[in-house]
Amino acid sequence: MNQETFDAYLLAHRERLLEDYKDFLRQPSVAATGEGILEMAALVARRLASLGAEVQIVPTVEDAPPVVWAEIGEGDKTLLIYNHYDVQPPEPLELWESPPFEPTIRDGRIYARGASDDKGELVTRIHAIEAWLATQGKLPFKIKWLIEGEEEIGSPHLHAWVERHQDWLRKPDGRPLDGCLWEFGGFDEKGRFVLTMGVKGICYVELHAKGVDHDLHSSQAALAPNAAWRLVWALGTIKDASERILIEGYYDHVRPLTPQEEAVIAQMPFEEEEIKQKWGIREFVTGVSGLEAAKRLLFQPTATICGLSSGWEGQGTKTVLPARAVAKVDFRLVPNLTPELVLDLLRKHLDRHGFSDVEIKFLGGYRAALSDVNSPMVKAAERAAQRVYGQQPVKALLSPGSGPMYSLSEFIGGVPVVCAGIAHADTRAHAPNEHIILQNYYDGMRFIGVLIDEFAR
Amino acid sequence: MNQETFDAYLLAHRERLLEDYKDFLRQPSVAATGEGILEMAALVARRLASLGAEVQIVPTVEDAPPVVWAEIGEGDKTLLIYNHYDVQPPEPLELWESPPFEPTIRDGRIYARGASDDKGELVTRIHAIEAWLATQGKLPFKIKWLIEGEEEIGSPHLHAWVERHQDWLRKPDGRPLDGCLWEFGGFDEKGRFVLTMGVKGICYVELHAKGVDHDLHSSQAALAPNAAWRLVWALGTIKDASERILIEGYYDHVRPLTPQEEAVIAQMPFEEEEIKQKWGIREFVTGVSGLEAAKRLLFQPTATICGLSSGWEGQGTKTVLPARAVAKVDFRLVPNLTPELVLDLLRKHLDRHGFSDVEIKFLGGYRAALSDVNSPMVKAAERAAQRVYGQQPVKALLSPGSGPMYSLSEFIGGVPVVCAGIAHADTRAHAPNEHIILQNYYDGMRFIGVLIDEFAR
Repeated sequence: MNQETFDAYLLAHRERLLEDYKDFLRQPSVAATGEGILEMAALVARRLASLGAEVQIVPTVEDAPPVVWAEIGEGDKTLLIYNHYDVQPPEPLELWESPPFEPTIRDGRIYARGASDDKGELVTRIHAIEAWLATQGKLPFKIKWLIEGEEEIGSPHLHAWVERHQDWLRKPDGRPLDGCLWEFGGFDEKGRFVLTMGVKGICYVELHAKGVDHDLHSSQAALAPNAAWRLVWALGTIKDASERILIEGYYDHVRPLTPQEEAVIAQMPFEEEEIKQKWGIREFVTGVSGLEAAKRLLFQPTATICGLSSGWEGQGTKTVLPARAVAKVDFRLVPNLTPELVLDLLRKHLDRHGFSDVEIKFLGGYRAALSDVNSPMVKAAERAAQRVYGQQPVKALLSPGSGPMYSLSEFIGGVPVVCAGIAHADTRAHAPNEHIILQNYYDGMRFIGVLIDEFAR
Repeated sequence: MNQETFDAYLLAHRERLLEDYKDFLRQPSVAATGEGILEMAALVARRLASLGAEVQIVPTVEDAPPVVWAEIGEGDKTLLIYNHYDVQPPEPLELWESPPFEPTIRDGRIYARGASDDKGELVTRIHAIEAWLATQGKLPFKIKWLIEGEEEIGSPHLHAWVERHQDWLRKPDGRPLDGCLWEFGGFDEKGRFVLTMGVKGICYVELHAKGVDHDLHSSQAALAPNAAWRLVWALGTIKDASERILIEGYYDHVRPLTPQEEAVIAQMPFEEEEIKQKWGIREFVTGVSGLEAAKRLLFQPTATICGLSSGWEGQGTKTVLPARAVAKVDFRLVPNLTPELVLDLLRKHLDRHGFSDVEIKFLGGYRAALSDVNSPMVKAAERAAQRVYGQQPVKALLSPGSGPMYSLSEFIGGVPVVCAGIAHADTRAHAPNEHIILQNYYDGMRFIGVLIDEFAR
C-alpha cells in the first residue's frame, strides 16, 4: 500500500469524516427499547452502499432489529467483520455532562452513547475502507461484513440467523473464512494496544417474584407475603457475600485453565492499582489481587444484579407492601458453562430452595468463545499494530465482556478471531459520558488500512 | 338531639355535600412529593371557617406541610379530633380504573386517592357538624381539631409541634382533654363496625448501598463490588425466609400480651379465609392461623420492604453493574419498641454484620400507642354505633396500622382515644382504586351527629 496517500486522504477529509461519525451518534438506536433501530440500520446500509458494497438489510424475526449484511472486494481470501449498530440505553440521563445523542467534543474526546460501543469502531472501519478505495484502488481480498442490531440485548436472534445463512459465512466450496475482525478492542490503562481472542459467555435473565394479588397497605406485613422480600431471599441463595455462586453444580462446569492459557494470562499486564483508583475502591471483591485477580476476571463465572425494582421508588415514604418485584441478573460464562445449562441449573436451584414461585425470564445469552492466539489473523493485526502504534500489542486470552463470537467462529468452521478497536480503558461503555479519544479514532483508521495491507500478505 | 331534623338536613343537602367531598378529592395533596399540600391546607381551613370555627394554619418547620388547627363550640368538656389532609402517592397510575384525582362514582362507591384515607373521614365529620349546627343549635361541648399534612410520610414534625403547643392540647387549668376521635376506622370484612383503641408504631428508613464510584460495564463483576448485591445481602441479614427479624436485641423489647389484652384480641373476629381470598394467597406467612395470626398481626413487630431500586429498571437488558442501590423499609412497632431504639439496633446490627457501608436514612416514625378500651370516649362511640348501625361494635385492642397517637394521647396527659370511621375492609387505602361505599359515608355523618349527642352526656 501507499501509506502516504492513504494518510493524506484521511487528513484532507478529517472534518467531513468526523461529521459522518457524528451523524451515526445522533441517531439513537437502543435495542432494549427499539428506539431508532430501523433508522440506524438504514443509515448504516446507505453508508456501506456508498463505498460500493453490495448491501442487504436482512430480517431476523418479526419486529426484531434486522442484520445489515455487506460484501465488498474480490478474492478467495475472505475477511469477516463483525459490528453492531445498536447501543445501550442512555440512562441515568442526569449523569451525562452533554446529552447522550448530541455528540459533543470536549478536551479532544467525542462524547455520546455509542461513541465507543460500537459506532466508533464501525465508522473507523468504514472510513478506512473509503480511504483505501480512494487511494489504493480495489481491496486485496473479499470482505463480508455482518452488522447486527441486538448485541446490547444479548443477540437473541443472531445465532439462528447465522444457522439460516451458513453458506454466506463460508467460502463457496464450504471452507471456513480466513479471519474475523471483531467489533471491539483498543487500549488498556497504560495505553498498550490489546488484541483479544475470546470472550466470556453470558446468560441474562429477569427474576420475577410475586406475593399477594395487589399492593397492600404495609400494616398487613405480619401476615401477607411480600414480593420484595421473596426476591431478596431468592437472590441471597444465588450468591452470598463471599462472592461464591451457590447454584448447585455450577462450578462443575468451570474447567481449570490449561498451562498455555495460564501463561497467556500471566503475560497480560494487569494494572490493578489504576483500576481500583478508577473505580474508587480500595480492594477487589474478596480481596483478590495479582494473577489471581486477572484469572478470576477472565476465567471465573459471575452473577451480577444489573437492576432491582419493586414497590415505591419515588421520593419519601409510601407504606406499601409490594405485590411484584423484579431483578435483572447477568451471568458471565466460561467455556462449557452454556446459557442453556445456567437456565436449567438456576431453575433447579430456586426450586430446591423453596423459590419455585420465582419466575425466570430468559432475555438473551451466548456461549463463551476462545480462538487461536497465534492465527494468521492475529499475526496480521500484530504487524499492523507495530507499524501504526510502534508497539508489540498485548495478547489477551479473552475479554471479560461477551458477544456472539461462538456463532461467528467455532460454529462456522473455526474462523480465527481478533478483537482490535479504538476504545481506551476509561471509555465508559454502557455508562454515562461514554466517549472516544479523537486521536484514537484518527489512528484507528490508519490501523485498519495497514491491517488490510497485512492481512493480504 | 332531634335526630329527625338532623337526618332530614343531610338528605336535603346530599348532592351539595357530595360535591364538597369531591372538591376535597380533586385537590391532590401528596406529602411524599409536596404536590398540592398548601392548596389542600387552605381548602380545609376555608371549609372549617365556614362552619364558624376559629381556624389557624400553623407552620411545622420551614417548608414542611403546616397543621390546620380549628376550635369550635364552648364548654369544659373537650373533644380532640385528629385527621390528616395529605394522601399517599397515587402510583402505580396504570392500575387505576379512573384517574386518582378525578373522583368517580361507580356502583355506589366513590373512587379517588384519599376517598378513604383520610379525606372521607374528614368530610364526614365536617358535614355532620354542619348539620348539627343547622338543626340542633350550638355544639354541646368544645371541639379542638388538629388536621396535619404529613401523616402519610410518618408525621415527622407533629410531635415537636405538639410539644410546642401543649397548652392548646390541655384544658386551661392543665387537665387533659376528655377524649380523642382518631382519623380512621370503619367496618371489617363481615360489615361489623369496629372501634379501635391503639396503633402500632412505625420506623421508616431508606437503606443506601454503594459500590464503585460510577456504574460499570457488568463484565467487571468478577472484581468490582456491586451495590445491588450489597443491599440484597444487607437486607438478608435483617429478616430471613422464616419471617423472624434477625436484628440482635430486637425481640428483647417486645413484651408479652397481658391476659386482658389477649382476651380483647380473642374476642375480635378475625375473618381469616376472607382475608386470604382477598389477597389471593392460600396461607399467611409462616403458615400461622387463628388466634396466633391475629396476635401476630397486632402484637408482633414487622420489617417490610416497601420499595427496591437499583441499576437498569427499564425494558429489556442493560449489562450494567450498579454503583448505587436503595431499599425503603418500614418497621411496624409494638409498645416499648420505639423508632429511636430501632434505628440504634439496626445500625449496630448492620455494622456487626459487615455492612457499615450501608447508610440508614430515617424518613419518619412514631411510637406504638394503647388506650383504655373502656373509657367514656369509647362508651359514647359504642352507644352511637348501637343507635346508628344497630350493632354492638367490635372493640379492637389496636390497629396494625400506625399514626401519631402517642403524641395525642399518652403524651398530653392520657387522653382516651377511639378510632371510628367509614372505611370498609376492601377500601384499598394506599393502593390503586381506593374508594368509599357511599352508604358508609351517608351513615357516617349520622354516626358523628349521634356521637356528639352521646359524648355530651
